[in-house]
Amino acid sequence: MKVKVVKKILEANDRIAENNRKALRDKGVFCINLMSAPGAGKTTLLSRTITALKGRFRFGVIEGDIQGTHDAEVISALGVPVIQINTEGACHLDANMISDMLPEMPLDDLDVLVIENVGNLVCPAEFDVGENAKVMLLSLSEGDDKPLKYPLMFQKSEALIVNKMDLLPHLDVDIEKIRGDVKALNPELRLFEVSCRKGDGLDPWYTWLSERIKR
Amino acid sequence: MKVKVVKKILEANDRIAENNRKALRDKGVFCINLMSAPGAGKTTLLSRTITALKGRFRFGVIEGDIQGTHDAEVISALGVPVIQINTEGACHLDANMISDMLPEMPLDDLDVLVIENVGNLVCPAEFDVGENAKVMLLSLSEGDDKPLKYPLMFQKSEALIVNKMDLLPHLDVDIEKIRGDVKALNPELRLFEVSCRKGDGLDPWYTWLSERIKR
Repeated sequence: MKVKVVKKILEANDRIAENNRKALRDKGVFCINLMSAPGAGKTTLLSRTITALKGRFRFGVIEGDIQGTHDAEVISALGVPVIQINTEGACHLDANMISDMLPEMPLDDLDVLVIENVGNLVCPAEFDVGENAKVMLLSLSEGDDKPLKYPLMFQKSEALIVNKMDLLPHLDVDIEKIRGDVKALNPELRLFEVSCRKGDGLDPWYTWLSERIKR
Repeated sequence: MKVKVVKKILEANDRIAENNRKALRDKGVFCINLMSAPGAGKTTLLSRTITALKGRFRFGVIEGDIQGTHDAEVISALGVPVIQINTEGACHLDANMISDMLPEMPLDDLDVLVIENVGNLVCPAEFDVGENAKVMLLSLSEGDDKPLKYPLMFQKSEALIVNKMDLLPHLDVDIEKIRGDVKALNPELRLFEVSCRKGDGLDPWYTWLSERIKR
Protein backbone atom coordinates (compact mmCIF):
# COMPACT_ATOMS: atom_id res chain seq x y z
CA MET A 1 0.00 0.00 0.00
CA LYS A 2 2.76 2.42 0.95
CA VAL A 3 4.67 1.53 -2.22
CA LYS A 4 1.55 2.15 -4.30
CA VAL A 5 1.12 5.68 -2.92
CA VAL A 6 4.76 6.48 -3.57
CA LYS A 7 4.52 5.11 -7.11
CA LYS A 8 1.47 7.26 -7.84
CA ILE A 9 3.28 10.37 -6.59
CA LEU A 10 6.26 9.61 -8.83
CA GLU A 11 4.03 8.97 -11.87
CA ALA A 12 2.23 12.29 -11.37
CA ASN A 13 5.60 14.00 -10.91
CA ASP A 14 6.97 12.53 -14.13
CA ARG A 15 3.96 13.77 -16.09
CA ILE A 16 4.39 17.33 -14.82
CA ALA A 17 8.16 17.13 -15.40
CA GLU A 18 7.54 16.18 -19.04
CA ASN A 19 5.31 19.26 -19.43
CA ASN A 20 8.05 21.45 -17.90
CA ARG A 21 10.61 19.99 -20.31
CA LYS A 22 8.35 20.66 -23.29
CA ALA A 23 7.64 24.25 -22.15
CA LEU A 24 11.38 24.91 -21.82
CA ARG A 25 12.19 23.26 -25.17
CA ASP A 26 9.56 25.42 -26.90
CA LYS A 27 11.44 28.48 -25.61
CA GLY A 28 14.86 27.07 -26.51
CA VAL A 29 15.97 26.93 -22.87
CA PHE A 30 18.40 24.22 -21.71
CA CYS A 31 17.71 23.12 -18.12
CA ILE A 32 20.14 21.77 -15.53
CA ASN A 33 19.17 20.16 -12.21
CA LEU A 34 22.11 20.86 -9.86
CA MET A 35 22.27 18.55 -6.85
CA SER A 36 24.51 17.71 -3.87
CA ALA A 37 24.61 17.16 -0.11
CA PRO A 38 24.40 20.32 2.05
CA GLY A 39 27.41 22.59 1.77
CA ALA A 40 29.16 20.89 -1.16
CA GLY A 41 29.46 24.22 -2.97
CA LYS A 42 26.56 24.36 -5.46
CA THR A 43 26.07 28.13 -5.15
CA THR A 44 29.80 28.86 -5.40
CA LEU A 45 30.09 26.66 -8.51
CA LEU A 46 27.07 28.39 -10.00
CA SER A 47 28.49 31.86 -9.29
CA ARG A 48 31.80 30.92 -10.91
CA THR A 49 30.06 29.33 -13.91
CA ILE A 50 27.70 32.24 -14.58
CA THR A 51 30.57 34.71 -14.30
CA ALA A 52 32.69 32.67 -16.73
CA LEU A 53 29.97 31.96 -19.30
CA LYS A 54 27.53 34.87 -19.14
CA GLY A 55 29.08 36.39 -22.24
CA ARG A 56 28.05 33.30 -24.19
CA PHE A 57 24.76 32.22 -22.58
CA ARG A 58 21.92 34.04 -20.82
CA PHE A 59 21.34 32.30 -17.47
CA GLY A 60 18.34 32.15 -15.16
CA VAL A 61 18.29 30.38 -11.78
CA ILE A 62 15.71 28.78 -9.51
CA GLU A 63 17.04 28.31 -5.97
CA GLY A 64 15.56 25.56 -3.78
CA ASP A 65 15.99 25.76 -0.02
CA ILE A 66 14.04 24.65 3.02
CA GLN A 67 13.93 28.29 4.06
CA GLY A 68 15.83 31.56 3.61
CA THR A 69 16.98 33.55 0.58
CA HIS A 70 20.76 33.54 1.07
CA ASP A 71 21.65 31.73 -2.16
CA ALA A 72 19.18 33.72 -4.27
CA GLU A 73 20.76 36.96 -3.04
CA VAL A 74 24.24 35.71 -4.01
CA ILE A 75 23.07 34.82 -7.52
CA SER A 76 20.95 37.94 -7.94
CA ALA A 77 24.05 40.05 -7.35
CA LEU A 78 25.44 38.61 -10.60
CA GLY A 79 22.65 40.32 -12.51
CA VAL A 80 20.72 37.22 -13.62
CA PRO A 81 17.00 36.56 -13.00
CA VAL A 82 16.51 34.32 -9.95
CA ILE A 83 13.54 32.87 -8.08
CA GLN A 84 13.79 31.40 -4.57
CA ILE A 85 11.57 28.44 -3.72
CA ASN A 86 11.22 27.73 0.01
CA THR A 87 10.08 24.14 0.42
CA GLU A 88 9.15 24.64 4.09
CA GLY A 89 10.36 21.24 5.19
CA ALA A 90 10.38 19.24 1.95
CA CYS A 91 13.79 17.72 1.33
CA HIS A 92 13.77 18.04 -2.47
CA LEU A 93 12.22 19.99 -5.33
CA ASP A 94 9.51 18.30 -7.37
CA ALA A 95 8.17 19.01 -10.85
CA ASN A 96 5.09 20.79 -9.53
CA MET A 97 7.14 23.39 -7.63
CA ILE A 98 9.03 24.17 -10.86
CA SER A 99 5.83 24.22 -12.93
CA ASP A 100 4.44 26.91 -10.60
CA MET A 101 7.55 29.05 -11.08
CA LEU A 102 8.15 28.79 -14.86
CA PRO A 103 5.59 31.54 -15.70
CA GLU A 104 7.54 33.85 -13.36
CA MET A 105 10.77 33.35 -15.32
CA PRO A 106 11.56 35.45 -18.45
CA LEU A 107 12.08 32.32 -20.57
CA ASP A 108 12.15 34.27 -23.86
CA ASP A 109 15.33 35.97 -22.65
CA LEU A 110 17.15 32.82 -21.41
CA ASP A 111 19.42 30.16 -22.91
CA VAL A 112 19.97 28.18 -19.71
CA LEU A 113 17.87 27.62 -16.60
CA VAL A 114 19.76 26.19 -13.63
CA ILE A 115 17.66 24.65 -10.86
CA GLU A 116 19.71 24.47 -7.66
CA ASN A 117 18.08 21.72 -5.65
CA VAL A 118 17.79 21.38 -1.85
CA GLY A 119 21.04 20.14 -0.26
CA ASN A 120 20.40 16.41 0.02
CA LEU A 121 22.26 13.45 -1.48
CA VAL A 122 19.16 11.21 -1.53
CA CYS A 123 15.71 12.39 -2.64
CA PRO A 124 16.51 15.05 -5.26
CA ALA A 125 17.85 12.24 -7.48
CA GLU A 126 14.43 10.54 -7.41
CA PHE A 127 12.40 13.49 -8.68
CA ASP A 128 12.59 14.58 -12.32
CA VAL A 129 11.84 18.32 -12.42
CA GLY A 130 11.90 18.65 -16.21
CA GLU A 131 15.66 19.12 -16.66
CA ASN A 132 17.75 18.14 -19.68
CA ALA A 133 20.76 17.18 -17.57
CA LYS A 134 21.39 16.27 -13.94
CA VAL A 135 24.70 17.56 -12.59
CA MET A 136 25.97 16.76 -9.10
CA LEU A 137 28.68 17.93 -6.74
CA LEU A 138 30.53 15.90 -4.16
CA SER A 139 32.60 17.73 -1.59
CA LEU A 140 35.89 15.89 -1.08
CA SER A 141 35.41 16.39 2.66
CA GLU A 142 32.32 14.13 2.59
CA GLY A 143 34.63 11.15 2.20
CA ASP A 144 35.40 8.45 -0.35
CA ASP A 145 32.56 6.13 0.73
CA LYS A 146 29.78 8.31 -0.68
CA PRO A 147 29.39 6.82 -4.20
CA LEU A 148 28.71 3.34 -2.80
CA LYS A 149 26.46 4.61 0.02
CA TYR A 150 24.38 7.01 -2.10
CA PRO A 151 24.61 5.45 -5.58
CA LEU A 152 21.43 6.77 -7.21
CA MET A 153 22.54 10.37 -7.74
CA PHE A 154 25.86 9.20 -9.22
CA GLN A 155 23.99 6.84 -11.55
CA LYS A 156 21.51 9.45 -12.76
CA SER A 157 23.89 12.38 -13.28
CA GLU A 158 25.74 13.25 -16.51
CA ALA A 159 28.51 15.16 -14.74
CA LEU A 160 30.08 14.91 -11.27
CA ILE A 161 32.07 17.82 -9.91
CA VAL A 162 34.31 16.78 -7.03
CA ASN A 163 34.78 20.07 -5.19
CA LYS A 164 37.15 21.22 -2.43
CA MET A 165 40.11 19.39 -3.97
CA ASP A 166 42.32 21.93 -2.16
CA LEU A 167 41.51 20.08 1.09
CA LEU A 168 43.04 16.80 -0.15
CA PRO A 169 46.26 17.13 1.93
CA HIS A 170 44.15 17.66 5.09
CA LEU A 171 41.72 14.73 4.74
CA ASP A 172 41.88 10.93 4.96
CA VAL A 173 40.26 10.54 1.56
CA ASP A 174 41.31 8.22 -1.25
CA ILE A 175 40.56 10.06 -4.49
CA GLU A 176 41.41 6.93 -6.48
CA LYS A 177 38.61 5.08 -4.68
CA ILE A 178 36.13 7.81 -5.63
CA ARG A 179 37.29 7.68 -9.27
CA GLY A 180 37.01 3.89 -9.40
CA ASP A 181 33.66 3.56 -7.63
CA VAL A 182 32.10 6.31 -9.73
CA LYS A 183 33.34 4.68 -12.94
CA ALA A 184 31.84 1.35 -11.87
CA LEU A 185 28.48 2.93 -10.98
CA ASN A 186 28.22 5.04 -14.13
CA PRO A 187 30.82 4.59 -16.89
CA GLU A 188 29.36 7.55 -18.84
CA LEU A 189 29.66 10.05 -15.95
CA ARG A 190 31.99 12.98 -16.71
CA LEU A 191 34.23 13.69 -13.72
CA PHE A 192 35.70 17.12 -12.91
CA GLU A 193 38.02 17.68 -9.94
CA VAL A 194 37.97 21.31 -8.86
CA SER A 195 38.27 23.84 -6.08
CA CYS A 196 35.46 26.37 -6.48
CA ARG A 197 36.91 28.40 -3.60
CA LYS A 198 40.32 28.71 -5.28
CA GLY A 199 38.96 28.68 -8.82
CA ASP A 200 41.12 25.68 -9.78
CA GLY A 201 40.26 23.06 -12.42
CA LEU A 202 37.10 24.71 -13.70
CA ASP A 203 37.98 25.23 -17.38
CA PRO A 204 37.23 21.63 -18.48
CA TRP A 205 33.84 21.93 -16.76
CA TYR A 206 33.06 25.20 -18.58
CA THR A 207 34.03 23.58 -21.90
CA TRP A 208 31.93 20.47 -21.28
CA LEU A 209 28.92 22.51 -20.15
CA SER A 210 29.10 24.87 -23.13
CA GLU A 211 29.14 21.91 -25.53
CA ARG A 212 26.31 20.18 -23.66
CA ILE A 213 24.12 23.29 -23.81
CA LYS A 214 24.60 23.63 -27.55
CA ARG A 215 24.06 19.92 -28.33
CA MET B 1 -5.22 16.37 1.05
CA LYS B 2 -1.47 15.93 0.71
CA VAL B 3 -0.94 17.50 4.13
CA LYS B 4 -3.48 15.14 5.65
CA VAL B 5 -1.63 12.07 4.36
CA VAL B 6 1.68 13.35 5.70
CA LYS B 7 0.11 14.11 9.08
CA LYS B 8 -1.33 10.61 9.30
CA ILE B 9 2.06 9.08 8.55
CA LEU B 10 3.69 11.19 11.27
CA GLU B 11 0.97 10.33 13.80
CA ALA B 12 1.39 6.61 13.14
CA ASN B 13 5.16 7.03 13.40
CA ASP B 14 4.87 8.82 16.75
CA ARG B 15 2.71 6.03 18.16
CA ILE B 16 5.25 3.37 17.18
CA ALA B 17 8.11 5.55 18.45
CA GLU B 18 6.40 5.79 21.85
CA ASN B 19 6.19 1.99 21.97
CA ASN B 20 9.91 1.73 21.10
CA ARG B 21 10.76 4.21 23.88
CA LYS B 22 8.73 2.24 26.41
CA ALA B 23 10.30 -1.09 25.36
CA LEU B 24 13.78 0.41 25.77
CA ARG B 25 12.93 2.04 29.12
CA ASP B 26 11.62 -1.30 30.43
CA LYS B 27 15.07 -2.76 29.70
CA GLY B 28 16.92 0.24 31.16
CA VAL B 29 18.42 1.17 27.78
CA PHE B 30 19.15 4.81 26.95
CA CYS B 31 18.66 5.57 23.25
CA ILE B 32 20.41 8.18 21.09
CA ASN B 33 19.35 9.20 17.56
CA LEU B 34 22.58 10.34 15.86
CA MET B 35 22.01 12.54 12.80
CA SER B 36 23.95 14.64 10.27
CA ALA B 37 24.44 15.37 6.57
CA PRO B 38 26.41 12.74 4.58
CA GLY B 39 30.05 12.47 5.55
CA ALA B 40 30.01 14.67 8.66
CA GLY B 41 31.72 11.94 10.69
CA LYS B 42 28.95 10.09 12.58
CA THR B 43 30.67 6.70 12.40
CA THR B 44 34.07 8.11 13.39
CA LEU B 45 32.52 9.92 16.37
CA LEU B 46 30.71 6.75 17.35
CA SER B 47 33.89 4.65 17.12
CA ARG B 48 35.79 7.14 19.29
CA THR B 49 32.93 7.36 21.81
CA ILE B 50 32.46 3.60 22.16
CA THR B 51 36.21 3.11 22.58
CA ALA B 52 36.37 5.81 25.25
CA LEU B 53 33.26 4.78 27.22
CA LYS B 54 32.91 1.03 26.76
CA GLY B 55 34.40 0.40 30.19
CA ARG B 56 31.49 2.33 31.73
CA PHE B 57 28.54 1.54 29.44
CA ARG B 58 27.53 -1.41 27.29
CA PHE B 59 26.77 -0.09 23.81
CA GLY B 60 24.66 -1.46 20.97
CA VAL B 61 24.29 0.17 17.55
CA ILE B 62 21.73 0.24 14.74
CA GLU B 63 23.22 1.56 11.49
CA GLY B 64 20.92 3.18 8.94
CA ASP B 65 22.10 3.49 5.32
CA ILE B 66 20.47 3.54 1.91
CA GLN B 67 22.56 0.49 1.08
CA GLY B 68 25.80 -1.24 2.06
CA THR B 69 27.27 -2.47 5.35
CA HIS B 70 30.46 -0.37 5.60
CA ASP B 71 29.59 1.44 8.83
CA ALA B 72 28.24 -1.69 10.53
CA GLU B 73 31.54 -3.45 9.80
CA VAL B 74 33.52 -0.58 11.35
CA ILE B 75 31.40 -0.66 14.52
CA SER B 76 31.31 -4.46 14.71
CA ALA B 77 35.12 -4.50 14.83
CA LEU B 78 34.84 -2.72 18.20
CA GLY B 79 33.13 -5.81 19.64
CA VAL B 80 29.66 -4.34 20.18
CA PRO B 81 26.38 -5.75 18.83
CA VAL B 82 25.35 -3.97 15.62
CA ILE B 83 22.47 -4.27 13.15
CA GLN B 84 22.53 -2.72 9.69
CA ILE B 85 19.26 -1.38 8.26
CA ASN B 86 19.28 -0.76 4.50
CA THR B 87 16.47 1.66 3.68
CA GLU B 88 16.69 0.94 -0.07
CA GLY B 89 16.03 4.51 -1.10
CA ALA B 90 14.33 6.00 1.98
CA CYS B 91 16.20 9.10 3.12
CA HIS B 92 15.62 8.61 6.88
CA LEU B 93 14.89 5.97 9.49
CA ASP B 94 11.36 5.77 10.89
CA ALA B 95 9.99 4.24 14.09
CA ASN B 96 8.69 1.16 12.31
CA MET B 97 12.13 0.22 10.97
CA ILE B 98 13.50 0.40 14.54
CA SER B 99 10.54 -1.51 15.97
CA ASP B 100 11.30 -4.36 13.57
CA MET B 101 14.93 -4.50 14.74
CA LEU B 102 14.56 -4.18 18.53
CA PRO B 103 13.80 -7.92 19.02
CA GLU B 104 17.11 -8.66 17.24
CA MET B 105 19.10 -6.58 19.76
CA PRO B 106 20.31 -8.10 23.08
CA LEU B 107 18.62 -5.33 25.09
CA ASP B 108 19.12 -7.11 28.43
CA ASP B 109 22.87 -6.72 27.94
CA LEU B 110 22.88 -3.05 26.91
CA ASP B 111 22.99 0.34 28.65
CA VAL B 112 22.97 2.48 25.51
CA LEU B 113 21.52 1.99 22.03
CA VAL B 114 22.87 4.39 19.39
CA ILE B 115 20.82 4.69 16.21
CA GLU B 116 23.01 6.14 13.45
CA ASN B 117 20.55 7.68 11.01
CA VAL B 118 20.85 8.02 7.23
CA GLY B 119 23.13 10.92 6.22
CA ASN B 120 20.63 13.73 5.59
CA LEU B 121 20.25 17.13 7.25
CA VAL B 122 16.49 17.31 6.59
CA CYS B 123 14.09 14.39 7.09
CA PRO B 124 15.70 12.43 9.97
CA ALA B 125 14.85 15.39 12.25
CA GLU B 126 11.14 14.95 11.43
CA PHE B 127 10.85 11.30 12.46
CA ASP B 128 10.92 10.28 16.12
CA VAL B 129 12.32 6.73 16.29
CA GLY B 130 11.85 6.28 20.04
CA GLU B 131 15.08 7.90 21.20
CA ASN B 132 15.70 9.69 24.51
CA ALA B 133 18.02 12.26 22.95
CA LYS B 134 18.72 13.56 19.47
CA VAL B 135 22.38 14.35 18.84
CA MET B 136 23.64 15.92 15.62
CA LEU B 137 26.95 16.57 13.89
CA LEU B 138 27.83 19.41 11.58
CA SER B 139 31.01 19.17 9.56
CA LEU B 140 32.79 22.53 9.58
CA SER B 141 33.39 22.07 5.84
CA GLU B 142 29.63 22.26 5.20
CA GLY B 143 29.80 26.00 5.88
CA ASP B 144 28.48 28.55 8.36
CA ASP B 145 25.10 28.99 6.63
CA LYS B 146 23.75 25.57 7.61
CA PRO B 147 21.95 26.42 10.90
CA LEU B 148 19.75 29.03 9.21
CA LYS B 149 19.16 26.91 6.08
CA TYR B 150 18.36 23.64 7.91
CA PRO B 151 17.04 24.86 11.29
CA LEU B 152 14.85 21.93 12.36
CA MET B 153 17.61 19.50 13.28
CA PHE B 154 19.42 22.20 15.28
CA GLN B 155 16.17 23.01 17.09
CA LYS B 156 15.34 19.39 17.95
CA SER B 157 18.78 18.21 19.10
CA GLU B 158 20.16 18.30 22.64
CA ALA B 159 23.78 18.33 21.54
CA LEU B 160 25.58 19.59 18.43
CA ILE B 161 29.05 18.32 17.63
CA VAL B 162 30.87 20.58 15.16
CA ASN B 163 33.38 18.19 13.63
CA LYS B 164 36.48 18.68 11.44
CA MET B 165 37.60 21.74 13.42
CA ASP B 166 41.14 20.91 12.21
CA LEU B 167 40.07 22.22 8.76
CA LEU B 168 39.30 25.72 10.09
CA PRO B 169 42.51 27.31 8.66
CA HIS B 170 41.68 25.91 5.21
CA LEU B 171 38.03 27.01 4.93
CA ASP B 172 36.13 30.30 4.51
CA VAL B 173 33.96 29.54 7.54
CA ASP B 174 33.02 31.90 10.35
CA ILE B 175 32.77 29.75 13.49
CA GLU B 176 31.39 32.73 15.45
CA LYS B 177 28.44 32.84 13.04
CA ILE B 178 27.73 29.15 13.66
CA ARG B 179 27.91 29.69 17.43
CA GLY B 180 25.59 32.70 17.30
CA ASP B 181 23.00 31.26 14.90
CA VAL B 182 22.84 27.99 16.83
CA LYS B 183 22.35 29.83 20.11
CA ALA B 184 19.51 31.87 18.59
CA LEU B 185 17.80 28.76 17.16
CA ASN B 186 18.14 26.66 20.32
CA PRO B 187 19.51 28.29 23.49
CA GLU B 188 19.57 24.91 25.30
CA LEU B 189 21.71 23.15 22.67
CA ARG B 190 25.06 21.93 24.01
CA LEU B 191 27.85 22.73 21.55
CA PHE B 192 31.07 20.70 21.20
CA GLU B 193 33.82 21.67 18.76
CA VAL B 194 35.97 18.67 17.90
CA SER B 195 38.12 16.88 15.38
CA CYS B 196 37.13 13.22 15.38
CA ARG B 197 39.97 12.46 12.95
CA LYS B 198 42.63 13.95 15.26
CA GLY B 199 40.81 13.06 18.49
CA ASP B 200 40.75 16.68 19.66
CA GLY B 201 38.13 18.25 21.93
CA LEU B 202 36.20 15.06 22.67
CA ASP B 203 36.51 14.88 26.49
CA PRO B 204 33.73 17.44 27.21
CA TRP B 205 31.43 15.44 24.90
CA TYR B 206 32.24 12.18 26.72
CA THR B 207 31.53 13.86 30.07
CA TRP B 208 28.23 15.36 28.90
CA LEU B 209 27.10 12.08 27.32
CA SER B 210 27.96 10.03 30.42
CA GLU B 211 25.93 12.38 32.62
CA ARG B 212 23.04 12.41 30.14
CA ILE B 213 22.93 8.60 30.03
CA LYS B 214 22.79 8.35 33.83
CA ARG B 215 20.20 11.08 34.28
